[in-house]
Amino acid sequence: MNPQHQTHERLLQRLQQTVGPEGVVCGSARMAPYLEERRGRFKPHAAAVVLPAQTTEVAAVVRACAEAGATIVPQAGNTGLCGGAAPQDADRQILLNLERMNRIREVDRSNFTLTAEAGCVLADVQAAAAAAHRLFPLSYAAEDRCHIGGNLATNAGGMNVLRYGNTRELVLGVEVVLSDGHIWNGLTPLRKDNSGYDLKDLFIGSEGTLGIITAAVLKLYPRPRQRSSAIIGLLEIEHAIALLDRLQTAAGETLVACEIMGRVPVEFALRHIQGCREPFATPYPWYLLLELTSSRWTDELPGLLRETLQQAAENRLVAEWRVAEDHSEAEALWRIRKSIPAAQKYEGGSIKHDISVPLSRIAEFIERASAVLIKRLPGTRPCPFGHIGDGNIHFNLSQPLAMDPEVFLAHWDEFNRIVHDIVVDMGGSFAAEHGVGRLKPPEVARYKSVVEIDLMRRLKAALDPTGILNPGVIIPPRE
Amino acid sequence: MNPQHQTHERLLQRLQQTVGPEGVVCGSARMAPYLEERRGRFKPHAAAVVLPAQTTEVAAVVRACAEAGATIVPQAGNTGLCGGAAPQDADRQILLNLERMNRIREVDRSNFTLTAEAGCVLADVQAAAAAAHRLFPLSYAAEDRCHIGGNLATNAGGMNVLRYGNTRELVLGVEVVLSDGHIWNGLTPLRKDNSGYDLKDLFIGSEGTLGIITAAVLKLYPRPRQRSSAIIGLLEIEHAIALLDRLQTAAGETLVACEIMGRVPVEFALRHIQGCREPFATPYPWYLLLELTSSRWTDELPGLLRETLQQAAENRLVAEWRVAEDHSEAEALWRIRKSIPAAQKYEGGSIKHDISVPLSRIAEFIERASAVLIKRLPGTRPCPFGHIGDGNIHFNLSQPLAMDPEVFLAHWDEFNRIVHDIVVDMGGSFAAEHGVGRLKPPEVARYKSVVEIDLMRRLKAALDPTGILNPGVIIPPRE
Repeated sequence: MNPQHQTHERLLQRLQQTVGPEGVVCGSARMAPYLEERRGRFKPHAAAVVLPAQTTEVAAVVRACAEAGATIVPQAGNTGLCGGAAPQDADRQILLNLERMNRIREVDRSNFTLTAEAGCVLADVQAAAAAAHRLFPLSYAAEDRCHIGGNLATNAGGMNVLRYGNTRELVLGVEVVLSDGHIWNGLTPLRKDNSGYDLKDLFIGSEGTLGIITAAVLKLYPRPRQRSSAIIGLLEIEHAIALLDRLQTAAGETLVACEIMGRVPVEFALRHIQGCREPFATPYPWYLLLELTSSRWTDELPGLLRETLQQAAENRLVAEWRVAEDHSEAEALWRIRKSIPAAQKYEGGSIKHDISVPLSRIAEFIERASAVLIKRLPGTRPCPFGHIGDGNIHFNLSQPLAMDPEVFLAHWDEFNRIVHDIVVDMGGSFAAEHGVGRLKPPEVARYKSVVEIDLMRRLKAALDPTGILNPGVIIPPRE
Repeated sequence: MNPQHQTHERLLQRLQQTVGPEGVVCGSARMAPYLEERRGRFKPHAAAVVLPAQTTEVAAVVRACAEAGATIVPQAGNTGLCGGAAPQDADRQILLNLERMNRIREVDRSNFTLTAEAGCVLADVQAAAAAAHRLFPLSYAAEDRCHIGGNLATNAGGMNVLRYGNTRELVLGVEVVLSDGHIWNGLTPLRKDNSGYDLKDLFIGSEGTLGIITAAVLKLYPRPRQRSSAIIGLLEIEHAIALLDRLQTAAGETLVACEIMGRVPVEFALRHIQGCREPFATPYPWYLLLELTSSRWTDELPGLLRETLQQAAENRLVAEWRVAEDHSEAEALWRIRKSIPAAQKYEGGSIKHDISVPLSRIAEFIERASAVLIKRLPGTRPCPFGHIGDGNIHFNLSQPLAMDPEVFLAHWDEFNRIVHDIVVDMGGSFAAEHGVGRLKPPEVARYKSVVEIDLMRRLKAALDPTGILNPGVIIPPRE
């Protein structure tokens, strides 16, 4: 047995003592489900998968790894899109998955809070809130699989950010295992607390590089009593911004979602996904999808929508509109939006961007980026859709018809560069809601100032001086 | 001339070269306005007051002080209540006041953002937003004097936190001068940006100990079209919590303020402040004051309030209620609440607490703390009022009648200890909205875990390794 193998064996033994034999998963077949990477851009490898069942076990795992010189990749639901939970070292890296830490520790109805462990599935958190006649508003496509720990680690966005904010805004307190194995109990349920530095927000969105979030106190809201959706055909994307302005005044907080879809992604959905129907007899270059909800019994949401949209139509901001008559019609409208990512796969290769720009510059961004890319590779089909209310566009590009997908995908890095250069030039972000992970540290290096990267490095060194936590994520290597 | 005096003179010369002669204020008479401390608990001293007019000048001041071995106390409007802007060293400490950095750099109406420099008066920011038909919702008593830089440095709270959050929630980006004189331009106007660590929130609420905030991008909201207030008499404080629950469902976002007042502080206001009138013929042990606002033309707020309060009265949650008929009646109701701090001064010595507990435990806290203190010093008059919707009570104590104020005030530290012990035991905070400053580092040492204090020290050392920025604030000295 060589010395490295001995160290490896000792680490596994120590981990088994810590979390029990059922808490350590070895062997490529058993590890495989944890080593999937959704976008296929990384090939994960790990020495073992460890499944601690409580916070003290997470702390013990961290200490054991520190002593053995192993590094740790924390993982929750493994639904991330930037490789942040993909370990890269079969010899000296442990995948620490939190799925066994899946208890809802407390629901405090009067305080409008819920305390959940990191391994709770988001849908289960939503259900626990609903059982207490409350709403936990975080919602997005992967909600049946993603875990709350991953939501916090990546500061997940989703459909309802316009009204309720990103995950960060939905968290009051966190419990974190630090790089030295100490546990920071920051599980405060308070809405006002200025008794020290804001440590919580440093861990949220740090993708497991500064500490391992093991539990959180989440904010709850009154449960909506009613819901109304509308679809709108627009001749110009600028009209979406002007309309959003009117809607925010007319509908206030009831406006929870405002999604844009170009004609191209709508056509993809109509062509490939069952149950998607053409929204209007006339096709439009742009569509807006709105959702309003309210906890107030005095609200009459469809009437509010009709009045606002009628007036906007008279002002030529809206070409055509329809308020869903009932739940099933609303579902049919949202089906179009939710089908876009799947539909795009039938159109060949797709190069993806998760960007944001100021609301006032969305139209300019889409025009400018589309023009440059189509000039660079004629036939490229921009497929923009996303959370226009937050300035967040998934600016995806489908390949020209009849091109070999591989030939198109070979442009990935070049197109990313073109798009991100334009985004950053316009005061935008190259990583709006999916995070940085192992995918975008080169973008961090290219677009962030020397001062900002240095600040991030100093924080990393202060909280994880030995670099044990998720190395290679977020912070670019020194040149 | 002794060497120390020489160094001092050289620093002043260098500062004058940096910010111009009009930017350096010396001599006790001219410095006096900057060296006031509102609560009279600290006697401020400084070598000079420096008034930089732009960010690069702030950076140059920091570098000059670093070279001269002087430390820096940043100050904005100097309206803080915990001595965070009170310099303590007439030889080697510079007071850096930001009042000359008072430009509104940009208002982006479509993006619902405003960029303001740190020395802008809060009321001027509110006015600039209003001129663009927008709302900047931060609001509290000192708004005509406090500066936005201080609001951010202390993460100020105020009247509208229930709906709009603390200052932290109202900020998208910041510009910060670091301890080494570098400038971090984090002035992003984006609502979604996960491209790195959340540096912004580390500086917000750090009271000038990690960096000097020189400008910020602030979130704006639709301007309210209507407003309605109500006063409610309650027999039990528990009823306030149950009523708040109903109001949050029935009124949704329109509920912007929910303030509690005990009978004692209301009597103080009635007795001492002109224009305060008894709200009802019958006195009640507790009063709730509500404000609803809405940007929606379809809302009918007085009706919504009447319906909800009538139903609550039928369920015996509300003893008596009245919705203000017009603006002047609403003003009269709010006058009672706003007069309490001034009225308390007429009742002799007052020992103050700025605490928060979970909403579900407010009643328990007030009962428990009042009982202990009255037992300790019979005749002590608890004077609780504040932002019950946020769990934040200003639990002030007025002296027993006919006691020498000095005798009562000699109990300050002892009473703080009693109250804070109870608060922390109940999962609450000893510093809810006024911050820590130079006043409460001993509380940080007593109530925060070793792990948390160590985290704060590590962050301080990472961002201000030489300790040049606001020494003595927030972080307790090592034993």
